[in-house]
Amino acid sequence: MGDFADATELSPRADGGFDVDLHPKWALEDKPNGGYLLAVLARAAGTLSSHPHLTALSGSFVQSPKPGPAVVTAEVLRAGRGATQLRARLSQGDRPCVEALATFGQLDEAEPWWSGTVPVALPPIEDCPRSGVVGPGGAFRIHILDVVEQRLDPSTSGFLRGEPTGRGLIAGWLRLADGTDWDPVSLMVAVDAMPPIGYDLSAPGWTPTVQLSAYVRRLPAAGPVRIRVTCTDVGAGQIDHAVHVWDSKDRLVAQATQICALRLP
Amino acid sequence: MGDFADATELSPRADGGFDVDLHPKWALEDKPNGGYLLAVLARAAGTLSSHPHLTALSGSFVQSPKPGPAVVTAEVLRAGRGATQLRARLSQGDRPCVEALATFGQLDEAEPWWSGTVPVALPPIEDCPRSGVVGPGGAFRIHILDVVEQRLDPSTSGFLRGEPTGRGLIAGWLRLADGTDWDPVSLMVAVDAMPPIGYDLSAPGWTPTVQLSAYVRRLPAAGPVRIRVTCTDVGAGQIDHAVHVWDSKDRLVAQATQICALRLP
Repeated sequence: MGDFADATELSPRADGGFDVDLHPKWALEDKPNGGYLLAVLARAAGTLSSHPHLTALSGSFVQSPKPGPAVVTAEVLRAGRGATQLRARLSQGDRPCVEALATFGQLDEAEPWWSGTVPVALPPIEDCPRSGVVGPGGAFRIHILDVVEQRLDPSTSGFLRGEPTGRGLIAGWLRLADGTDWDPVSLMVAVDAMPPIGYDLSAPGWTPTVQLSAYVRRLPAAGPVRIRVTCTDVGAGQIDHAVHVWDSKDRLVAQATQICALRLP
Repeated sequence: MGDFADATELSPRADGGFDVDLHPKWALEDKPNGGYLLAVLARAAGTLSSHPHLTALSGSFVQSPKPGPAVVTAEVLRAGRGATQLRARLSQGDRPCVEALATFGQLDEAEPWWSGTVPVALPPIEDCPRSGVVGPGGAFRIHILDVVEQRLDPSTSGFLRGEPTGRGLIAGWLRLADGTDWDPVSLMVAVDAMPPIGYDLSAPGWTPTVQLSAYVRRLPAAGPVRIRVTCTDVGAGQIDHAVHVWDSKDRLVAQATQICALRLP
């Protein structure tokens, strides 16, 4: 078990919300992955949407839930002609954990009308070793790497060998280990399933996500996605991530930014 | 009148919310600027925050209010040690107009610990002509350009002369016309006060903002800011903006992305 569909399964509640059982596999130690939590919120919002596809999701990470039972509520702000806009909240007991604003619309698989980007150049997937669940130094367990197959470009994963490049760039391949192809909701996992960019900058310490915003640009083709994570600036107790995701047909399918707290020693 | 402080002034209501009078100057025709609305929401959220500086704000633009009276409500999600996280809503009558998630923390003016970016290269401010309030073709009035001094780099403003570059890049200088220096709240105006990037791509039509997320990276030094707006991808009815803002000391002070609906003819 631990498949994406199971791990995000919702049970309607009498009060209009949903029960969800946060799966321990979709976590780093006992902290559920932020993208996984956003996917759960998106799935709940989608049940209320008049439009089929998640196109935008901004989340504020208030406090981490634990794996186990949680409740999701969603509310339509406006169901318009072209889009449905909603808000959603995940809580555990009386603690709000993640709050989100979501937009659903109608995506397609057409080629871009214009593109200012090209997919990140990566070695073939078989030349990128699969990341293990034991984190650098063996200090913690990244359980999500059992259910998300992460294969980093060795030229950007020097931090695993104690040799960060200092460029602020980590890239690689991702696919769901259960064999499911990516879709707009599961892409929320993809935008948050790469190593923290601080690893490549020798920025030590824990960098919890404060806010994350993702846009889904089109329906992804079958197959693994390529992801590039870059950093713009580190300072004033903050580190950002800029994430771009391309599908097997070389099209941008998602982009995201996140701002994280940085606790320098 | 029309100064930023006046245009974002809040009057507490008995129900815990705030009355605000949306000023007609901070608008394109009769549509208040999205960044201005976010600044109003940030100011309301700030009154409830245990921390002094806006650091992150994600807004969902549900429907445009008109200039005139509106109501803002804000709610603390969590007041932690390092940050206060809130949500806020601007409504007019019974219509929710903008919903936002905000984070406040403690910024500083120190140099970045690490930076992966350099300020956009611009001609001196006096060599960048001030943009007028009459939009391309004389078809509409960009009133906000009376209260925000926008000076575009001529090499990126060919669209004004019917010669878009097709690169997806617009850059220039911005300052508040009332002489006030930028601060974290007014930077919300800065990240949304440049021309739509579609102008440089010959993407015709109205591109209303659906969601916008901004991060304030440090306290801006006095003086005008330099702004670069780029586009990543156009398609599936969507066009994105990526915005970076540097202060007079060459430091990144804000970054933002927005996703807009694109109505191709």
